[in-house]
Amino acid sequence: MTQHDHEPHPVSRRRLLGTVSAAGASGLALGATGAAAAQAVGQDEPRPPALSTVGSTRVPFHGAHQAGITTPAQAHGHLLAFDLKPGAGRKQAATLLRRWSATARELMAGEPSARNSRNAQNTGIALDAGPCSLTVTFGFGRTFFSRTGLTDQLPDALAPLPEFSSDALDKSRSNGDLWVQIGADDGLVAFDALRLIQRQAAGTARLRWQMNGFNRTPGATSRPMTVRNLMGQVDGSRNPKPSERNFDERIFVPGSGSSSGSGSGSWLAGGSYAVVRRIRMLLDDWDEQSPSAQEKVIGRRKSDGAPLTGGGEHTRPDLDKRSADGSPVIAANAHVRVTAPASNGGAAMLRRGFSYHDGFRDDGAPDAGLLFVAWQADPLRGFVPVQRKLDRGDALSPFIRHEASGLFAVPGGPAKGEYVGQRLLEG
Amino acid sequence: MTQHDHEPHPVSRRRLLGTVSAAGASGLALGATGAAAAQAVGQDEPRPPALSTVGSTRVPFHGAHQAGITTPAQAHGHLLAFDLKPGAGRKQAATLLRRWSATARELMAGEPSARNSRNAQNTGIALDAGPCSLTVTFGFGRTFFSRTGLTDQLPDALAPLPEFSSDALDKSRSNGDLWVQIGADDGLVAFDALRLIQRQAAGTARLRWQMNGFNRTPGATSRPMTVRNLMGQVDGSRNPKPSERNFDERIFVPGSGSSSGSGSGSWLAGGSYAVVRRIRMLLDDWDEQSPSAQEKVIGRRKSDGAPLTGGGEHTRPDLDKRSADGSPVIAANAHVRVTAPASNGGAAMLRRGFSYHDGFRDDGAPDAGLLFVAWQADPLRGFVPVQRKLDRGDALSPFIRHEASGLFAVPGGPAKGEYVGQRLLEG
Repeated sequence: MTQHDHEPHPVSRRRLLGTVSAAGASGLALGATGAAAAQAVGQDEPRPPALSTVGSTRVPFHGAHQAGITTPAQAHGHLLAFDLKPGAGRKQAATLLRRWSATARELMAGEPSARNSRNAQNTGIALDAGPCSLTVTFGFGRTFFSRTGLTDQLPDALAPLPEFSSDALDKSRSNGDLWVQIGADDGLVAFDALRLIQRQAAGTARLRWQMNGFNRTPGATSRPMTVRNLMGQVDGSRNPKPSERNFDERIFVPGSGSSSGSGSGSWLAGGSYAVVRRIRMLLDDWDEQSPSAQEKVIGRRKSDGAPLTGGGEHTRPDLDKRSADGSPVIAANAHVRVTAPASNGGAAMLRRGFSYHDGFRDDGAPDAGLLFVAWQADPLRGFVPVQRKLDRGDALSPFIRHEASGLFAVPGGPAKGEYVGQRLLEG
Repeated sequence: MTQHDHEPHPVSRRRLLGTVSAAGASGLALGATGAAAAQAVGQDEPRPPALSTVGSTRVPFHGAHQAGITTPAQAHGHLLAFDLKPGAGRKQAATLLRRWSATARELMAGEPSARNSRNAQNTGIALDAGPCSLTVTFGFGRTFFSRTGLTDQLPDALAPLPEFSSDALDKSRSNGDLWVQIGADDGLVAFDALRLIQRQAAGTARLRWQMNGFNRTPGATSRPMTVRNLMGQVDGSRNPKPSERNFDERIFVPGSGSSSGSGSGSWLAGGSYAVVRRIRMLLDDWDEQSPSAQEKVIGRRKSDGAPLTGGGEHTRPDLDKRSADGSPVIAANAHVRVTAPASNGGAAMLRRGFSYHDGFRDDGAPDAGLLFVAWQADPLRGFVPVQRKLDRGDALSPFIRHEASGLFAVPGGPAKGEYVGQRLLEG
């Protein structure tokens, strides 16, 4: 369906990168000005050549922390869990993590080897695309440690999450020995990474479960950092920000390893814990509520995510404010009140999820909702107390179902020459 | 996870559109120059404000043809089929199509009513996003005509597709009374449209099947018109182009209605026929082939889609060219040879599909492939002869499975004040 001119030569990597970064540089200079009408294109006009930072942006593989935690959430995401195959132990796991890390590094950098169509390892799916903010993040589930004889290194904080009264968990889509989170702003780049990760595991680990998700496409809105979920609500406004004091302390495991309890070695320094929940939304029920009723459930305005007590999205909700009739403006069971850090001893987690939509269920309801991924230095001070409170009385509960759950220890970022988890597997 | 400043006021529609079109205008001026390295961002840096044509581009609802046929394929797609509920006939169908058309028009234009958070019909999911090239396209399946007493208007060309020896069709995911194709460059905008379309059908029609697909994100590559499929192959290079002579004649039903056979009224003038096939790719088998073996199957280079006989992606394959040893350079059963217009009496269809990926099957294989959508003035001169030929001997056949199928008559574009299908339902 292309209407472009004949292109006699393959686009070289150099040319691709040059092109996109020229656009990137200029793009940054464009201010939020002008009031002209939206550009309308005829149905038959070719789309203009793509020159944007969407393709060119790359996220470093090496660093203090793994990528995919504080990286802005991408437009496409895959969550995968693997179980080691019988006979595979610590040595095979180390080989796999070494291979996975090398692949993640190459793909995230958009290196030539990852773009060479003669490479038999290359699916070709991402050929001629940029890195597209690809991140690949690796974690270990509790069962990994017994399978690999590493129970001495098992952190206390990796104890199974408590059961919550509203849980309706599918065990086959929960937990797992190894966890991989893939994110990219292009669906084919993300799928390419997924295929390579999966194929490289073949001899060592079996895919246990896999979930696909999405977020806004960069450029779809002029408020790019605002995440909306499939209930139409702005989500994540109170997330801690890397610029805040105590951010690292709340999200990442400290170097000493002390806060992750006895039994944990220093292998997890700079790492984090990921709580993963597949939360189905009962959208047919939700969409029957009036906008005002929905806002009361959440405690925020639908239009812009501002608390019902006023201000903008990032204004702190005034939980004490009362209406003329004396009732609290933000209801006692409003989601924003129950989850407020002030209501939970300052506990904080960094939520960075993806919406999902897998069609519809046998009962005709949409199989859609949130792939909730929350990051914290200690799940017993992050996710668990908040979820306990939600479990007791959250106005949102009637509209959601927790259908799968996982908890994973995610090592710190690898130094150059190192692979993810090396300090655990060769420590 | 946002690190943006406090935003005290909701972003007005005017401001959003002004912003994106300023970027759009400047974006067009950026040439393919420069050779600097790709821009690397730190993990903690906020993504720059989104200023791109991705959000601002809108596709007209009114016109000679419906949108979503020659419109460049979007990054996200949904295909849905509905069956009329018992008791629903022509009158109810007309009411539904009128309502669907009004919704499609509003959402595609990004009108204020579609962006008003107080509107109970509004899910809110697309609030603060631009139109994002949204298209909603409507079609009628063969069974629609008997259910609505309109068999006089049933076009001959809407006869069931022949059975092919390689078909393994799931009837429950095939055909249907009504077909809707949704496409948008943002996943939430596409999902929002899907939810509205589905909710508005509730009293009249039941969702029969639904499939989700994707393509490259605009900006992910500097070759935006090149579609790659999940086999890593450039796909659709030989598609007819709207600028070509005979394009309309091959893709759209003429005004007289003569070519669509007796029994067809003029209601389909300017319309087209959509053949929909869910084609699963046996990716584990495919990825075991060497790049050379894959190229031999297709007859094109993987890197850039150029025919193995040389040139670039849009160079015509030289089907007569032979190697030094006398064998044809493009094998006798290469996909590009079997599907070449020259091998099929000039038959042509406009392929405009989406990749799909629904996780993995019970046997561990990826449930992924192509949502093939092909447009033509007459399926008996477009899809059918080509598929017959493929069915007899295509090197690609061992690597794919046709798992679902549909054929739909898609009316021409509505005039202002008209709804899609009005000429059929009130003719």
